[in-house]
Amino acid sequence: MAVTLLAPTAFAADSIPTDLRDSALATFRALPSTTPTVANNPITPEKIALGKALFFDPRVSASGVLSCNSCHNLATGGDDNHETSIGHGWQKGQRNAPTVLNAVFNIAQFWDGRAADLKAQAKGPVQAGIEMANTPGQVIATLKSMPQYVEWFDAAFPAEADRVTFDNFAKAIEAFEATLVTPAPFDSFLNGDEVAMTSEQKQGLALFMDKGCSSCHAGINVGGQAYFPFGLVEQPSAVVLPEKDKGRFAVTNAADDYYVFRVAPLRNVALTAPYFHSGKVWDLKQAVAIMGTTQLGVVLADEEVDLLVAFLNSLTGEAPEVAYPILPSETATTPRPVTQISGK
Amino acid sequence: MAVTLLAPTAFAADSIPTDLRDSALATFRALPSTTPTVANNPITPEKIALGKALFFDPRVSASGVLSCNSCHNLATGGDDNHETSIGHGWQKGQRNAPTVLNAVFNIAQFWDGRAADLKAQAKGPVQAGIEMANTPGQVIATLKSMPQYVEWFDAAFPAEADRVTFDNFAKAIEAFEATLVTPAPFDSFLNGDEVAMTSEQKQGLALFMDKGCSSCHAGINVGGQAYFPFGLVEQPSAVVLPEKDKGRFAVTNAADDYYVFRVAPLRNVALTAPYFHSGKVWDLKQAVAIMGTTQLGVVLADEEVDLLVAFLNSLTGEAPEVAYPILPSETATTPRPVTQISGK
Repeated sequence: MAVTLLAPTAFAADSIPTDLRDSALATFRALPSTTPTVANNPITPEKIALGKALFFDPRVSASGVLSCNSCHNLATGGDDNHETSIGHGWQKGQRNAPTVLNAVFNIAQFWDGRAADLKAQAKGPVQAGIEMANTPGQVIATLKSMPQYVEWFDAAFPAEADRVTFDNFAKAIEAFEATLVTPAPFDSFLNGDEVAMTSEQKQGLALFMDKGCSSCHAGINVGGQAYFPFGLVEQPSAVVLPEKDKGRFAVTNAADDYYVFRVAPLRNVALTAPYFHSGKVWDLKQAVAIMGTTQLGVVLADEEVDLLVAFLNSLTGEAPEVAYPILPSETATTPRPVTQISGK
Repeated sequence: MAVTLLAPTAFAADSIPTDLRDSALATFRALPSTTPTVANNPITPEKIALGKALFFDPRVSASGVLSCNSCHNLATGGDDNHETSIGHGWQKGQRNAPTVLNAVFNIAQFWDGRAADLKAQAKGPVQAGIEMANTPGQVIATLKSMPQYVEWFDAAFPAEADRVTFDNFAKAIEAFEATLVTPAPFDSFLNGDEVAMTSEQKQGLALFMDKGCSSCHAGINVGGQAYFPFGLVEQPSAVVLPEKDKGRFAVTNAADDYYVFRVAPLRNVALTAPYFHSGKVWDLKQAVAIMGTTQLGVVLADEEVDLLVAFLNSLTGEAPEVAYPILPSETATTPRPVTQISGK
């Protein structure tokens, strides 16, 4: 839980350190040019193709209305631009939907890190009553009712005896999600292209490291690698940090995990308003200013916020082209959509 | 309203008329190999690209949850596989969502033909309180708030002074939808490939014409070209034909339009269960049998139904590949999603 806060230093807006790239490389890492590996799930083209179909298929939800892509929309930065997502029966979720883009690089999944990886994460929303409201058994019955899906599972998991399983469903989705990597101007800069970032973006990067933002927001995802309390120095307002959501405490039951969250990964942050786990802040400048007071204990000047936002814009990447899938068609044995809310 | 019903004839299951293709060409028409033209809306690549973005953009709905693709899902036959669609606030629609695939060839849009074409249709669901619950003004405010959309409208409608308009929004969607044409084995057969359809499919086609199905389900979309009462010979059950939905009567106020609907176009019908405007029938065989009794006044034998369904399967086409769009990102002036139901 220790964090080194650099002392605020005098800031000259036009100063770009000559060793900026070297400093950045000591803190951050460029995205790889190939699909990353994931634990216990060798990625194959067949698994990716199956995972893409599952990711876009609304029939994995009880209602047949909601797909993974409903809340992690690849068209809009890999999230849904809502404070919290709309789920089964129009129920409102409890935390802001994080982007699926580059999520494979996070240390763990969900705002509180309660899922070790994307295959563990994929099993959550499917079963959450306010999200997809489905059950593993019903998901598998749905998939097994469509011969095309059975063929795709056979191709994706050829070595296994029982192929259409909830574990493999999650592994296929993880495989597809691992391809959702978005190289950005910041990566070009890290890779040696000094003009890939504008002067303002480079000044913002220098300031980001100088002010101490990079003490937490570091690594390949510019965040997503560690856990810290929201309100490290000063408590945010109760609107931004609702009292009842205790963050990682709910996972660990450890008193020093009160209001602790996984550090937000900042890639594509300009596309993923509103901000924070509560989704209460729509303006990126305001979000940066709040981070200044709550995490660093400093009031950032307007021009500093502008430069930091300029740097954050250099993290907006190029998403891979995804051909919209044609899904298997239902059969007589496919479970029918259930749109009512259970118990109502 | 006149319809010629051919007298039922004895049917030999293995008989395929030697002039089957000629007879079919007198009744049906193969899909064209190029994008069809539409009235008052020259189609350009820029308009198609803009229309695709709009079609997939949930921010054209008040809630930011629902896009055109939510109910006319290109992944699942161009519809949503629900009895009736789920809209704003989880409200249930009144009629089954028709497929958008090949809809450009229908004589008019909606089950009752109340929209003359796709650009008129596109304005409906956006404003319907139980669908997208939005207003033209709010749609335009949303689009104008995103510079990328303004650029795309400029490119799509270069000759106009006022480019980002609700009319142009609808025209762009129409342009994209006009590209959603799905050539099928039936088209290959009409074009001269005698082995593109199986023997059963050809027998089914012969039967389809012989029984009189093609008296209504004719033309390029195997339907979609005319209006007829549901229950021409015998009234369907009140479940399948709910009493309160008077069909085209609501459009024309003419007494002989009671329970009149646009003849369902049958392309891709195997992908678009459940069936009829009520969406109450999930099984295509059952739907065919109901058509036999209600429209033809005959009880079709099981083997006849099977052959007719075999023919209908030859109408399942190849959808064009659609790259999932990356949408413009929101700005400070983009209206925020409104998820509550008005008046609640």
